[in-house]
Amino acid sequence: MSKPKTAITPTRSENYPEWYQSVLKAADLAEHSPVRGCMVIKPWGYAIWENMQRILDAKFKETGHANAYFPLFIPLSYLEKEAEHVEGFAKECAVVTHHRLEKNASGKLVPAGELEEPLIVRPTSEMIIGHTFAKWVESYRDLPLLINQWCNVVRWEMRTRMFLRTTEFLWQEGHTVHATREEAEAEAKKMHQVYTDFAHSTLAIPFIKGEKTPSERFPGAVNTYTIEGMMQDRKAIQGGTSHFLGQNFARACGIQFQSVNGEREFGWTTSWGMTTRMIGGLIMSHSDDDGLVLPPKVAAAHLAIIPIVHNADARESVLSYCEQLAKNLRSVHYHGIPLQVIVDSRDLRGGEKTWSWIKKGIPLRLEIGPREMEAEQFGLARRDKPHKETIPVRRSELMARIPQILDEIQDHLYRKATAFRDQHTVKIDKKSDFHDFFAEKGDEIHGGFALCHWNGDPAIEAKVKEDLNVTIRCIPLDDDTAPGHCLFSGEKSPRRVLFAKAY
Amino acid sequence: MSKPKTAITPTRSENYPEWYQSVLKAADLAEHSPVRGCMVIKPWGYAIWENMQRILDAKFKETGHANAYFPLFIPLSYLEKEAEHVEGFAKECAVVTHHRLEKNASGKLVPAGELEEPLIVRPTSEMIIGHTFAKWVESYRDLPLLINQWCNVVRWEMRTRMFLRTTEFLWQEGHTVHATREEAEAEAKKMHQVYTDFAHSTLAIPFIKGEKTPSERFPGAVNTYTIEGMMQDRKAIQGGTSHFLGQNFARACGIQFQSVNGEREFGWTTSWGMTTRMIGGLIMSHSDDDGLVLPPKVAAAHLAIIPIVHNADARESVLSYCEQLAKNLRSVHYHGIPLQVIVDSRDLRGGEKTWSWIKKGIPLRLEIGPREMEAEQFGLARRDKPHKETIPVRRSELMARIPQILDEIQDHLYRKATAFRDQHTVKIDKKSDFHDFFAEKGDEIHGGFALCHWNGDPAIEAKVKEDLNVTIRCIPLDDDTAPGHCLFSGEKSPRRVLFAKAY
Repeated sequence: MSKPKTAITPTRSENYPEWYQSVLKAADLAEHSPVRGCMVIKPWGYAIWENMQRILDAKFKETGHANAYFPLFIPLSYLEKEAEHVEGFAKECAVVTHHRLEKNASGKLVPAGELEEPLIVRPTSEMIIGHTFAKWVESYRDLPLLINQWCNVVRWEMRTRMFLRTTEFLWQEGHTVHATREEAEAEAKKMHQVYTDFAHSTLAIPFIKGEKTPSERFPGAVNTYTIEGMMQDRKAIQGGTSHFLGQNFARACGIQFQSVNGEREFGWTTSWGMTTRMIGGLIMSHSDDDGLVLPPKVAAAHLAIIPIVHNADARESVLSYCEQLAKNLRSVHYHGIPLQVIVDSRDLRGGEKTWSWIKKGIPLRLEIGPREMEAEQFGLARRDKPHKETIPVRRSELMARIPQILDEIQDHLYRKATAFRDQHTVKIDKKSDFHDFFAEKGDEIHGGFALCHWNGDPAIEAKVKEDLNVTIRCIPLDDDTAPGHCLFSGEKSPRRVLFAKAY
Repeated sequence: MSKPKTAITPTRSENYPEWYQSVLKAADLAEHSPVRGCMVIKPWGYAIWENMQRILDAKFKETGHANAYFPLFIPLSYLEKEAEHVEGFAKECAVVTHHRLEKNASGKLVPAGELEEPLIVRPTSEMIIGHTFAKWVESYRDLPLLINQWCNVVRWEMRTRMFLRTTEFLWQEGHTVHATREEAEAEAKKMHQVYTDFAHSTLAIPFIKGEKTPSERFPGAVNTYTIEGMMQDRKAIQGGTSHFLGQNFARACGIQFQSVNGEREFGWTTSWGMTTRMIGGLIMSHSDDDGLVLPPKVAAAHLAIIPIVHNADARESVLSYCEQLAKNLRSVHYHGIPLQVIVDSRDLRGGEKTWSWIKKGIPLRLEIGPREMEAEQFGLARRDKPHKETIPVRRSELMARIPQILDEIQDHLYRKATAFRDQHTVKIDKKSDFHDFFAEKGDEIHGGFALCHWNGDPAIEAKVKEDLNVTIRCIPLDDDTAPGHCLFSGEKSPRRVLFAKAY
């Protein structure tokens, strides 16, 4: 079989959704499970999540947050206490109604032991954590209360796609209580900034910071801050969100404290979360028609050493040379962790091995045979460059060069993704241009981010969504647009907002 | 109010179960949640779990295991595939039967969208992981398959106690597949040893390694290896267990591979787990009548610096001195992580602060006032020594001394727990002595570990359990007992086994 021109079929331009599934499969990241809408995250995918966790968790701790753990189940009566909140989640929650199994008359195992009150598998934990916080907070001295939880949540999705939308997913959810509106707003903004920095510097994705419009807010929130990234099909993905919840949840849960003046006041709360969905965003931002491309800071491993043995006699010496080199390299640190080096000693042809690592997105590859051993010089291949291109590196330089080159890859991916985003971001001022920009063009990739004026009317948002499946992703925070006139109504608009199709 | 003689009431000898709850509360480790049988793990308790996770996870990776993630839900039909297994868990599982909520005629929110097949919230994941492994394993080249998962599980318990027995708990579950019986048995034993080493060197608890008797095995296992520790009420707690599953689950799940000889064979599997229950064991092993005592390697923090200010003018200078000292100390590493140092700048009396840290079990305390600042010499107080006793340490020595002293504490706790266990472990050869040893003595703490001969008859085990609530905790692996005669039947016995009351 001759090697196809690209390792992944179909390519991005041929069929983007199928390309995504093929990349996942070729890189061995995840697979469907027998449970509707739930996935299995395989080791190569889970290692990315572990890296994201490690880096984010350190940021949360640096900013004064402590981890804790709250129950998986929420009694129905608790979920109901905040009206908008329950309304937002009622249509998609897993409900536990029984607490054992027993055999019925025909010997079939059926649910038994019906619960007095149904339990909801947490879709998010505001109500159960809020109830607990009500007990923890008594005085202004207990504030701010800054807690985070790493856990699984369940939202019953009818149409799922691995990482991007699954019934069960993994995430972290921060929950905080503050004495004043100002402090709570500042916290929500601070964590929004933490997500933005993480997305830029760790995931190498140039997410755009903004606020959600009222119709796109988290159910029960006063304000939702979001980061929105552009995928290679020019659709948007929502990254982390950070919510200023006002006193809505404090009232619903009874979070009250005695102020400095001795008065009973309701607390001001926030919540903020980032999920395994970001792995989907990572895949769609950087990968190409040969498979996964991973930014080094979150890559499951950094370097694959591929021993090249054409002759059985040389096998032992090449393998042991590679193992020794790997051992040396593992003593080098890259952004706080030891270099993750794999020696691929599988009994496969060299080309097959090389292509498997290209598809898995490892940032660097090193093929080593007797010739390289003798010369003490290797050709280092970067995943973000053409596959045949290598950088000549002497063995003596390798330990110093690898971290530098990894940083160059990280930087290159960020610049590339930024250029792509900017290339497909346009200011649109005419309704017909807006329509042309977003209208379906067969299977062709089209559209992008459109910065347009809007008068703030949710009816217009709803109409645009209905007509073109386009939504306002956010009201960007870091821009310099001047006032103008709404594209749809002609009415005054204080600033442009970001329209896009979205995952 | 004069300070009571002990910080915790009741004391261990007055009422051990209540002492346990009081220690938990005084140390702020966890609390009951509004969900039956589920607890909230508070930051001081969760930090212990994070340390346990970090250390165990590194051991799992060193021994070649990779982390992955599998669904929370198990379709009922999957759970049923292994008969003993489902029998073991049917009485205690949370069942999801609906996937949304809707308002009924009277406006009440009720479960809706009934599922075609009920989903079980995982009590353990053999069946869902086994099903997945059946797809991953095709050839002997895919073996061994060595996977671990960190997650939450649910077993519906009627009588719960925080950490020791809760409806939801956190754990890790390792699942592996091997080509031969020998390799799978070796894996189960290897992970048994990993747990033993971890318990001894990290938790400072002298657990006893052994095998379970057939009636105490994991449902579906061929052999279960366990570690059993003695608590201060002389009852046993089961630590990690490691199961050799034979081909039972491979057959139930269809895990087959092509052998070197080209034949289709069933794999040989293992599973092994350790849970948040170990935190309960940790508390009960080392704590005293003044509260929690923590081994430094898993302590939520290592050192509390308590600024002593009798005069408002000195406040700023003492605080900034303490902060600077803390900053220096945080650059010191202790077993791979930076020293965790807390400066307690709360506006409380010094004595109140000191007692709060004693109750929270921080290994070291340092009270610093103007006098200590001037002398550049401090009195370091150890949690495992009388509270007034301090070690004089010069500031210049502090960075070197603290890790040494922490290791001394770790070692002291282990030796103390070992002496306690040995003091209450007896060989018993007469039935009347056995009865006297275990019979209730009012509320008094009694019993311990009894090493006795037993003929292997499960009917005797059942009778002893019924009469005295005593079970065979394990058949110890590391002992040198000679053959003898069963205490109960007079029949021949190859060796002594370990009897105890247990959590």
